[in-house]
Amino acid sequence: MRRAKQNPLITIKDIKPTHPSLKVDGVFNCGATKYNNQYILLLRIAESAISEDGYIKVPVLENKKLQIKLIDKNDKNLDFRDSRTIKNTESKVEYLTSLSHFRRAYSNDGIHFTVDKEPWIYPESEMESWGIEDPRVTHVLDKYLITYTAVSKHGVSVGLIETKDFISYERKGIILPVDNKDVSILPEKINGKYFMYHRPVPNDIGYPNMWSASSLDLTHWGEHKILLTVDENDWENGRIGGGAPSVKTNRGWLHIYHAANKDSVYKLGAFLTSLDDPTKILYKTSEPILSPFETYELHGFFGNVVFTCGIILESDEIKIYYGAADDKICLATISLDEIYQKLKPFRG
Amino acid sequence: MRRAKQNPLITIKDIKPTHPSLKVDGVFNCGATKYNNQYILLLRIAESAISEDGYIKVPVLENKKLQIKLIDKNDKNLDFRDSRTIKNTESKVEYLTSLSHFRRAYSNDGIHFTVDKEPWIYPESEMESWGIEDPRVTHVLDKYLITYTAVSKHGVSVGLIETKDFISYERKGIILPVDNKDVSILPEKINGKYFMYHRPVPNDIGYPNMWSASSLDLTHWGEHKILLTVDENDWENGRIGGGAPSVKTNRGWLHIYHAANKDSVYKLGAFLTSLDDPTKILYKTSEPILSPFETYELHGFFGNVVFTCGIILESDEIKIYYGAADDKICLATISLDEIYQKLKPFRG
Repeated sequence: MRRAKQNPLITIKDIKPTHPSLKVDGVFNCGATKYNNQYILLLRIAESAISEDGYIKVPVLENKKLQIKLIDKNDKNLDFRDSRTIKNTESKVEYLTSLSHFRRAYSNDGIHFTVDKEPWIYPESEMESWGIEDPRVTHVLDKYLITYTAVSKHGVSVGLIETKDFISYERKGIILPVDNKDVSILPEKINGKYFMYHRPVPNDIGYPNMWSASSLDLTHWGEHKILLTVDENDWENGRIGGGAPSVKTNRGWLHIYHAANKDSVYKLGAFLTSLDDPTKILYKTSEPILSPFETYELHGFFGNVVFTCGIILESDEIKIYYGAADDKICLATISLDEIYQKLKPFRG
Repeated sequence: MRRAKQNPLITIKDIKPTHPSLKVDGVFNCGATKYNNQYILLLRIAESAISEDGYIKVPVLENKKLQIKLIDKNDKNLDFRDSRTIKNTESKVEYLTSLSHFRRAYSNDGIHFTVDKEPWIYPESEMESWGIEDPRVTHVLDKYLITYTAVSKHGVSVGLIETKDFISYERKGIILPVDNKDVSILPEKINGKYFMYHRPVPNDIGYPNMWSASSLDLTHWGEHKILLTVDENDWENGRIGGGAPSVKTNRGWLHIYHAANKDSVYKLGAFLTSLDDPTKILYKTSEPILSPFETYELHGFFGNVVFTCGIILESDEIKIYYGAADDKICLATISLDEIYQKLKPFRG
């Protein structure tokens, strides 16, 4: 695994806020694909309101318009310890500190990117009133499918948007209800069905595990099955979830996933399924393939995080675009051979 | 609303345990339909292991076989206060105290039922290793669809089983991932799509609200939308969820749902949607139509509960089969006119 020496490729300094009262907290967790011979990243941009003494200002959408809520920093019924959220006494999230949207970034070499000055896709529906996050892009036939996390007071659900040209797009609704995220769709039908990986978070019983599901039309999903559980290794015993959409290799579907331990240190791993059945893991890395190490991964809006939503396979080499410390876009490359060497038979 | 004077219709005395080491804790929350001019109830039967001094015995399936786990009653890391569950220090459910399966009950008059002496559908898959619960039966064309709660250490998900004759049946897999339950499917296509109501329980953000979803084939579901939230009235501010499958009336689709307040007192309410669009509530009862009142509703395995999974509409009268205090089957009848009088315009 080699980190690009130009890392971080994109930082908050490269991003213009959407509104004078907002500042950019992070540009991270991007979808990645190629279109018209260019590299395209679909960036998650998180913005927060510039706070004033004694108050935190929280951006939310109400009736499709940006509103700024004033939250008293001394409110003893609220918990401000996590930089990403404000929780109530029951540990339920009452507010997110930032509101995320998506922008495009273009590059001819996969390293130097030009970023849109305006949002491309901004949260819109009631289910997106706290933002849209973590886009994954899958190229299926003549379409690019964007799966993303839709956040609101109702919870964390999964939306689907389609584009053919990265200019116009169409919202296809909520494809998985709360709480679910980390959805990536495989790029072609397998035995007549599309497949996805998803990561529900159960409330009463169970832990944040990875599941598979199938679809005939990409908007209606079923045949939900457990794929990978958190009780594997120390570095992945907190939560796991899909990363970038799987890529097709001679040896099977290769998937890069993320995993966090109980201290929320996020690392990347990989697994391989047969080309015939992406619902069963045959080989898996027992050690992470990328862990927070560089300063830009250890420190940031939320430190100790490497997290990918987008990879590109070219000439037996995988470009992994990843969010570092929840505020920067970075690149690491790894050969298929190097990943194959790290894969071990998985008892399933 | 008139309770049957024969209530309770079925109690644990009417149920033979499946195994000498088990006792029946409850017979409740039944699906209801008519088949071959008979009334059929699909009963949820909960069984627990007969415990011994100092230990609670917990029945679970392992490799499809019944296993009895011994749980030390003095284990200070476990919380035994809820009769239905054993929780760990993080309030996660570690065990259910009982394991549920389904049996059929038949009747010519809708009041006097003959109950199967053996299970009809017993938990089987990994997702059902802690039991199958709360079946709803919808008659669609030549099939009867059974939606049910599949419980395991992985969480609470929703399974689908089809039968044509209430003898043989076919498992159709998990149609909604964790945590979700209270699923009822509407009995016909509306504008080319099937519809269901479901009730996910989000973990980090949001509350147990009712949602709608659509399907073309009954096994793959999408277009998830919020239908009804818990922030309505005192008696329904804890959790709400679908009851029996909706019935078609001249005025629209009528649905009987359940709601609990924050003290877990379960009551029934009703709402009406247009026949064209079951995803928007037009009228709703602001007061419950049935509340725990009789001794058999106030006291039992889990008291203060009335909960329905099955109703039958005949001659402008609705038969509501309901679980009372999580251990008995009861019947109450109400005319459509009486429900209409209680319905109020819903601002939705």
